[in-house]
Amino acid sequence: MLLTGKNIIDNNFSSLGEETFRAYDPQTREYITPEYFEATTEEINKALGKASEDFEYFAGTSHFQRAELLESIADEIQKLGEILIERAMQETALSENRLQSEKSRTIKQLKLFATVLYETTWLDIRIDANDEGLDIISRKDIRQLHIPIGPVAVFTSGNFPLAFSVAGGDVASALAAGCPIIVKAHPSHPGTSELLAKAVLNALNKCNLPSGIFSMLHGASHKVGQELVKHPLLKAAAFTGSFAGGKALFDLAMQRKEPIPFYAEMGSINPVFFLPGAIHKNQDKIATDYVASFNLSVGQFCTNPGISFLFDNDDAISFINKICSQTQAAPSGAMLSTQIENHLKQQLEKVEKVTSCVLLAQGDAPDNYIAPALYKINADEFLNNELFHEEFFGPVSFLVMLSNEEELFRCINALKGQLTAAIQMEEEDQPLAKTVIEKLKFKVGRLIINNFPTGVEVCHAMHHGGPFPASTNPLFTSVGSASIKRFLRPLCYQNFPQALLPEELQNDNSHHIWRLVNGNFTQKSIKNEF
Amino acid sequence: MLLTGKNIIDNNFSSLGEETFRAYDPQTREYITPEYFEATTEEINKALGKASEDFEYFAGTSHFQRAELLESIADEIQKLGEILIERAMQETALSENRLQSEKSRTIKQLKLFATVLYETTWLDIRIDANDEGLDIISRKDIRQLHIPIGPVAVFTSGNFPLAFSVAGGDVASALAAGCPIIVKAHPSHPGTSELLAKAVLNALNKCNLPSGIFSMLHGASHKVGQELVKHPLLKAAAFTGSFAGGKALFDLAMQRKEPIPFYAEMGSINPVFFLPGAIHKNQDKIATDYVASFNLSVGQFCTNPGISFLFDNDDAISFINKICSQTQAAPSGAMLSTQIENHLKQQLEKVEKVTSCVLLAQGDAPDNYIAPALYKINADEFLNNELFHEEFFGPVSFLVMLSNEEELFRCINALKGQLTAAIQMEEEDQPLAKTVIEKLKFKVGRLIINNFPTGVEVCHAMHHGGPFPASTNPLFTSVGSASIKRFLRPLCYQNFPQALLPEELQNDNSHHIWRLVNGNFTQKSIKNEF
Repeated sequence: MLLTGKNIIDNNFSSLGEETFRAYDPQTREYITPEYFEATTEEINKALGKASEDFEYFAGTSHFQRAELLESIADEIQKLGEILIERAMQETALSENRLQSEKSRTIKQLKLFATVLYETTWLDIRIDANDEGLDIISRKDIRQLHIPIGPVAVFTSGNFPLAFSVAGGDVASALAAGCPIIVKAHPSHPGTSELLAKAVLNALNKCNLPSGIFSMLHGASHKVGQELVKHPLLKAAAFTGSFAGGKALFDLAMQRKEPIPFYAEMGSINPVFFLPGAIHKNQDKIATDYVASFNLSVGQFCTNPGISFLFDNDDAISFINKICSQTQAAPSGAMLSTQIENHLKQQLEKVEKVTSCVLLAQGDAPDNYIAPALYKINADEFLNNELFHEEFFGPVSFLVMLSNEEELFRCINALKGQLTAAIQMEEEDQPLAKTVIEKLKFKVGRLIINNFPTGVEVCHAMHHGGPFPASTNPLFTSVGSASIKRFLRPLCYQNFPQALLPEELQNDNSHHIWRLVNGNFTQKSIKNEF
Repeated sequence: MLLTGKNIIDNNFSSLGEETFRAYDPQTREYITPEYFEATTEEINKALGKASEDFEYFAGTSHFQRAELLESIADEIQKLGEILIERAMQETALSENRLQSEKSRTIKQLKLFATVLYETTWLDIRIDANDEGLDIISRKDIRQLHIPIGPVAVFTSGNFPLAFSVAGGDVASALAAGCPIIVKAHPSHPGTSELLAKAVLNALNKCNLPSGIFSMLHGASHKVGQELVKHPLLKAAAFTGSFAGGKALFDLAMQRKEPIPFYAEMGSINPVFFLPGAIHKNQDKIATDYVASFNLSVGQFCTNPGISFLFDNDDAISFINKICSQTQAAPSGAMLSTQIENHLKQQLEKVEKVTSCVLLAQGDAPDNYIAPALYKINADEFLNNELFHEEFFGPVSFLVMLSNEEELFRCINALKGQLTAAIQMEEEDQPLAKTVIEKLKFKVGRLIINNFPTGVEVCHAMHHGGPFPASTNPLFTSVGSASIKRFLRPLCYQNFPQALLPEELQNDNSHHIWRLVNGNFTQKSIKNEF
């Protein structure tokens, strides 16, 4: 499959601009063909214009049509075969195994949203029918469901070239909701993005859906993303990436004449708490899993356990020995991009200047690879130095040594908002664990016991988000079926004749969908005999 | 009951500041005692500090305890008796009937949230248990519910001194969620606010709940509200009022180091569409209801039908005659404040300069009262003059005359985001109504047929909100049981032993609460036999 390097707008390949860039192979340190064309203002306008034009049609498609589209995209990605994995490996230096499993996850996500569309709990149907004679009742006939919000921009992530990319979770959830998409492709893997975009286009064409529903724009500079977020026809945006990037775009979205929801997932330091009983009883497995977790895919996960807390006692000595030797033996790797590598190196230079911070262990790494590194600090350093509250995006973790529980609680209070927090515990740790959980729950989106945070399950109950700065809106998840809620808004129908109501709100409920009727969940029809 | 004029913080009456202001009687045009003390920075810090201190405790109370609190507040308001209505009449010039019905609504709202707490659908419980053997399943045990977001500021409205005030819908929903409240009392009815705050305090004390859960701050200047929104311990805010006020505070909330959700409901022009069949068959009733709706409580509703659309045909002539005579006969009244009155007068001065705008009818009004007014413009004027897209907060409505359906559709496309749109129709209008509905649904939060928009039912299915500028977040309602969602966020538990899970997430479900288990709604327990 030939890569064109062009933007995809309205089913056409478009290259109106003069600025171009190329992808970069982090392993060979060479640029890769073809040239990719930065989208121009004219192209951005066209993509938004078409998305807006086709929105009403797409919003009116049945849930079955949208489910078919998602399944068709999954099929087309499957059909791409090895070329997708090869190009992604070249552009990201991620391993074949990792990318194969990411591809499976991408397909699973698309299919999950198809099943979500076949049922309808996400519509959050509420009916206060004035004929049911219940206690809390409206004097008028009021019915509500959710409708798509409008054209959505998706800023794809650098570290998940498939699962948080052109056909990733944000796109799947927004398409499921009925929103046209404008993808801003990540400049570090434009070829992978083009392959995926063609799969989406093929699916759209097979499903006879209008071409304005999906566009993909390229841009290595910030300009394309900024113009996209400021465009008056855009109604919401989703972003996965760094705090600096997410916050800058969030600010632009809020400063618009019409502010729009901007859902940014910006990573965090994901604290891990090693409770004494666990370190006493189970330190071998914990040491292995911890070091594996912070080194997975060269540590390039937003859920990377970047900081951990350990009580300074006899068990700690042998545990530290174990995590040190595991770290020394852990594999090194090339990072996703030189930009990411340079940022990490700058952070580590600052770390070296902190006198109380000790490098406990470091792995080996050939040229161009980054070695795993484990550092030790004390609680005071964590409490007083902003540096250790920053995300280190890479195979690095800091161990904070604690003298007592009071220090632990002070450290928890000092935490910023986090995606996750994990507790390693045994039965005898329960009293302390309970206190720790009560304090942590107001700081994080996901609490974990005896797992590590990497590996975000795609399911109904997952929450991938958390209080700022982990995300810009702690009420919403970017992973799992609940992520569709980001792109839907309530619409209320008052005093409508049956014939003008959407099918899901009519008295007859022959599809047996779940509805909150006068405050009670039911799959029954509403009696129509008054 | 003696009014103190003081701020209420931590169960104490506090007056540290030197700035004071008094309420104003819009009927007599005189200031009313006592002096009210503007909250100082120290007082704001104290209120937030206490709220933050008591948050963990309040979040941990049972739903039954919170339901009891809401019911107790309702009882205490009931007990206030006539003094509440008398003071509110004096401060707002609203009629006794209107205020009595608003009091009932306030009590109904509190009790609605108590019933919401007795069931638990608002927790949005999701469980992906790895022992259920279903198809889309998590490899890990993942469970989710919603928790309170933290201390919430409530900016009360000027036009609803009871129902959107100190113990109104925002406060009821945030307390139900488990969030401590800091109320910024509206400076036009501080006495009414103090009476209500005492009712809340009494209820808190009777329920043995800590005093940091509720504070009320006074301020006639913008300073108190601004400091409140910028305070780092605040986690969310709700506002009902003008676009200028809401948008200014929204901007501050977004510019914080940690941006927080700011839910502002800012009113709109609530278009009404008179379809030909309805005007042919039912013009008497429609004329009466329309004029009554835009004049209700001197037109001071965010759902006031400020603009209406009518096809220029033979039926229109008699209809216009009817609405003119109704308008002339409609009662006048004193407005809530001189500020509101002056703003309306300034807008009407601008209207008088628009040459194509015709004053169709005006009622009589004694000194200090505002007379109902009905104006006529053509579609071009509506399409090209920003003035007619502004909310006129008062007894004023504009009739837009349409030559044809194409003009109607252009006018719909030109509408900004609205709280509501209403259609007056008969059976024969259905084809046109269908098209109008399809276009309107992307512009509004609530669609209404053959009712007028004033009168927002407090129920489960109500959506009171809409696309910007009607509100700052179209995903949430400020009226009805769904408004609790604004103050809750998801929290996910991964791989937790049963003993450490919140009761609602444990396998055993002996309270039969609704849960989404592996994607299916059920009230059953989870089998625990693997």
